Amino acid sequence: MCKACDYTIHGRQHHFGWDNSLEPALRVAPGSTIEFECRDSSAGQLTPESTVESVATLDFSKINPVSGPIFVEGAEPGDALKVTIEGFKPSGFGWTANIPGFGLLADQFTEPALTLWSYDPTSLEPAAFGAHGRVPLKPFAGTIGNALAEPGHHSVVPPRRVGGNLDIRDLAAGTELYLPVEVAGALFSVGDTHAAQGDGEVCGTAIESPMNAVLTLDLVKGAKLAMPRFTTPGPVTRHLDAKGYEVTTGVGPDLMTGARQAVADMVELLAGRYNMNPVDAYMLVSTCGDLRISEIVDMPNWVVSFYFPRVVFE
Amino acid sequence: MCKACDYTIHGRQHHFGWDNSLEPALRVAPGSTIEFECRDSSAGQLTPESTVESVATLDFSKINPVSGPIFVEGAEPGDALKVTIEGFKPSGFGWTANIPGFGLLADQFTEPALTLWSYDPTSLEPAAFGAHGRVPLKPFAGTIGNALAEPGHHSVVPPRRVGGNLDIRDLAAGTELYLPVEVAGALFSVGDTHAAQGDGEVCGTAIESPMNAVLTLDLVKGAKLAMPRFTTPGPVTRHLDAKGYEVTTGVGPDLMTGARQAVADMVELLAGRYNMNPVDAYMLVSTCGDLRISEIVDMPNWVVSFYFPRVVFE
Repeated sequence: MCKACDYTIHGRQHHFGWDNSLEPALRVAPGSTIEFECRDSSAGQLTPESTVESVATLDFSKINPVSGPIFVEGAEPGDALKVTIEGFKPSGFGWTANIPGFGLLADQFTEPALTLWSYDPTSLEPAAFGAHGRVPLKPFAGTIGNALAEPGHHSVVPPRRVGGNLDIRDLAAGTELYLPVEVAGALFSVGDTHAAQGDGEVCGTAIESPMNAVLTLDLVKGAKLAMPRFTTPGPVTRHLDAKGYEVTTGVGPDLMTGARQAVADMVELLAGRYNMNPVDAYMLVSTCGDLRISEIVDMPNWVVSFYFPRVVFE
Repeated sequence: MCKACDYTIHGRQHHFGWDNSLEPALRVAPGSTIEFECRDSSAGQLTPESTVESVATLDFSKINPVSGPIFVEGAEPGDALKVTIEGFKPSGFGWTANIPGFGLLADQFTEPALTLWSYDPTSLEPAAFGAHGRVPLKPFAGTIGNALAEPGHHSVVPPRRVGGNLDIRDLAAGTELYLPVEVAGALFSVGDTHAAQGDGEVCGTAIESPMNAVLTLDLVKGAKLAMPRFTTPGPVTRHLDAKGYEVTTGVGPDLMTGARQAVADMVELLAGRYNMNPVDAYMLVSTCGDLRISEIVDMPNWVVSFYFPRVVFE
């Protein structure tokens, strides 16, 4: 894949959180292609031997390491960093967890839970979720962004206009991402790689999976972007849409409440139909179910829909 | 298409708003297939000869006529009405409007605007948006629902748990929709047919188009649904996803604000790139752009993304 990488950033070259005073791991010219070794979002705390106890004792100061930062020569505030996502080299190991206090239905799912995944990193064939269906894979980087202008240390958890923990499923191979630059050099970092995720990442985790990401970093001078934007080279759901969808809805005046209703109803539907523990259904849909806003104009009630791909079970 | 229709509901058999005291237009046994003539959402106020002045003088007491109601024998509160969407017979005429005070960016687009569409009702080839690209078509019914338990007249504008003005793009041919029943007989009606719409219906209108809908009405006794749900027979975006997407994002603590940011940025992007009036870009994206929730768990900031299908221009 990376026949023409100019640099490699190793897994040890990571940091926790964003801070524009961090020393760059590398300085590159625009147009450089870099292979980033990305640790998983637990920074190796969860392994193929982990049990649910490991979730309960996670050290949150070591969540979401990102590899970098990269100083891109000539980048200035007001520019956009153009990130061409060349591809990924997945590891074959992944995990999905329900972490108490985190996730769209955190009030309903208060106990830790853990699913371990093993997948073929070459074929990327759909991965078995225990006895419960198979999830199509599409690797991407959950956290990808630039340093903020504001000094000091900033949590890695929330995404911001400079990117960061965007968790956008379609930042996959071939996509071109444009990120606002707020500091000289951009100070770009990447991590939190996922083997698969649904739009929403509803339980709070995806198929969290260490892998290498190959990216080309370039500049668009004076782009003056308000927010991140991206261009996909082709369709974004064909890896999972062939059999259609089961869809639940939430209708009402608040988008967040509607999203919670739709996801809760889908968890109940799948748990009943396939004899699953509700928390397992919750973790499963986080890896492959998509939250969409069907309408946002029919005052005062909006419709949020949750699309579960039937191919997982059919 | 409707080789085995049991009944026809004509366009004159419509009503404005929901009221469970309305006399049924028809009483049918479960399993009946009915062809509904559906007027457009202006009830014929807008025609191929209309100009933007017609938008400014719309009579809102005649918005969204729905054909029906149908009393389904045996339907009782707590049941679900199963609606199999057999297909549509589109008319070839459509309109899209910016109606002042209505739409996601109503504060930014305060003047009326109107686009008229002409499409091939047989081939359903993508329809030209003036000189600005071609929009793939996928007919569906925007308003589809049962009467509410609550007595009196209720506005047709907001959707509710019994359905109504759901504006869900994927309620297209082949989909099975399940709607909660709140009154004896369900009192089902349908209308507000669209030749195409993006998820969100962001400007407040789609390609509004009169057409016939063929539906089979059946019952699931004691289903006790909280909200509508549906099953699609196959993929839902392949009519428009072949060339990939341009995507803008809104990152922040409020989903509505994020959606507004993403749509406003897309309007600006397309208006600049293709030399369009911003209001034209706003109407265009309402017919084909999709609002998705990329992540809803990375506290306190969520990501709403707006996907514009590149096939419209490429």
